[in-house]
Amino acid sequence: MDHWKLTLSYDGTAFHGWQIQPGLATVQGSLADALERITGERALPQGSGRTDAGVHALAQVASFALKSSVPARNLPRALNHALPPSIRVLAAELVDASFHARHSARRKTYEYRIFERKADGVAGERICPPFLAPYAWDCRWPLELEPMQEAGRLLCGTHDFSSFGASDPERGVRDEEAVEGPNPVKTLLRSEWVREQSLLVYRVTGSGFLHHMVRNIVGTLVDIGRGSLRVDDITRILAARDRSAAGPTAPACGLFLQSVEYEAEGPGFRAQGPEDVAF
Amino acid sequence: MDHWKLTLSYDGTAFHGWQIQPGLATVQGSLADALERITGERALPQGSGRTDAGVHALAQVASFALKSSVPARNLPRALNHALPPSIRVLAAELVDASFHARHSARRKTYEYRIFERKADGVAGERICPPFLAPYAWDCRWPLELEPMQEAGRLLCGTHDFSSFGASDPERGVRDEEAVEGPNPVKTLLRSEWVREQSLLVYRVTGSGFLHHMVRNIVGTLVDIGRGSLRVDDITRILAARDRSAAGPTAPACGLFLQSVEYEAEGPGFRAQGPEDVAF
Repeated sequence: MDHWKLTLSYDGTAFHGWQIQPGLATVQGSLADALERITGERALPQGSGRTDAGVHALAQVASFALKSSVPARNLPRALNHALPPSIRVLAAELVDASFHARHSARRKTYEYRIFERKADGVAGERICPPFLAPYAWDCRWPLELEPMQEAGRLLCGTHDFSSFGASDPERGVRDEEAVEGPNPVKTLLRSEWVREQSLLVYRVTGSGFLHHMVRNIVGTLVDIGRGSLRVDDITRILAARDRSAAGPTAPACGLFLQSVEYEAEGPGFRAQGPEDVAF
Repeated sequence: MDHWKLTLSYDGTAFHGWQIQPGLATVQGSLADALERITGERALPQGSGRTDAGVHALAQVASFALKSSVPARNLPRALNHALPPSIRVLAAELVDASFHARHSARRKTYEYRIFERKADGVAGERICPPFLAPYAWDCRWPLELEPMQEAGRLLCGTHDFSSFGASDPERGVRDEEAVEGPNPVKTLLRSEWVREQSLLVYRVTGSGFLHHMVRNIVGTLVDIGRGSLRVDDITRILAARDRSAAGPTAPACGLFLQSVEYEAEGPGFRAQGPEDVAF
């Protein structure tokens, strides 16, 4: 058996998320179908985490095993030929049998993009270009960056993130964006905002993430940016360990899985797409 | 009656083109529905031209008349609230009853975007990001810009563009991208290529365009860029006045209606979106 590690980018707009579901277009299902068309084998690629419907990936990582022998340099091109243009394989490498895209992952980085309709120094309302709409939250409130930045920093470090986990009934057992178990204690290494052209971008790196955690954090930080919560409410929200203490879930379309890091590949290694994958 | 001029941008991916068709999502139909929801009146906005399925607009212009009186500054916001995020109204103004988006147009500019998989100085093949795929032709051939540039310049001026008109049976009577009648004689004022990051962009300004004309020109110039036609074939193709003499039709997804110019509004006026409409 050959063990493979695949790095792929996808536009989540038209997919019902990562996880395979009968009769629905999913990223995992499309990838399994493409592999089957190329090799004749049915393999189910395991992702570093399951992204929800509408969530995008700049560099998701998947692992799987194949009986067929395929030259590594041919696999991306063959897969890209078989896949829809909304999924692109950026790289494929043969790895040790012990490698598992989810279990071996050490850190993940997400990016969340907000289009600011009402920006400082801009008269009236800006209009979110239709070409950007599937890839950003078209946010209708004017946002103050400084308090969002401050509150974001307070989330760095190791905390119990139960207040930012999904409030669905499976919470606790369901841990779809996690690289570890369903433990609500996670460590964030980076949690910061930057302004990039017409976008406010949140970048967060962590050891693992609860289901909906990034979108719930963004929804809460936006509540702070628009003045309906204060910076120091973050401490109270974390302490509550209760989803209802935090703000709403930000829309899926603004979220991108940016990169996944694996220790086995040496310090500082990042599975990341080429520069022009970002747009 | 109030006479309106609307400037709008749309992502053509999910639409069956501009023109209203029963049971299908179209830009004109979505706009008519949104107007009806706001005013209770059924008006059919006339576009500066009909864009095909998958073709985008940075700044399309539409005109229509309404019995209802709506404050001009409220109309864009009300329409954007009623429209899907893939269509955005950029501006609305009250105009003279004689204004007609198609008949009054003097010049139109289109832009065609090509993603270069095989670019000069890039080892191997670049991969078209999934987020760019709906907005560019992912072209698999290496292209030489200089001959494309030269051939493009040969198209400037007044010519019979029959060789670049659609080969469908309605050719001659069908003239969907035209601002004038179905006359195959058109004048191009600009016809040039530029490299912009990972894209090759063709910009063409003309008095009018035959149906499929821009896509047929691009398909032919790409044939020249990849070496299957020569620069001076352009003269022969124009002279043939026969669609079969030219190259293939480039895919719809790479085409953007960039702007429409109207003389009535003073020299140099362009209906054009804000800077950040381009992405």
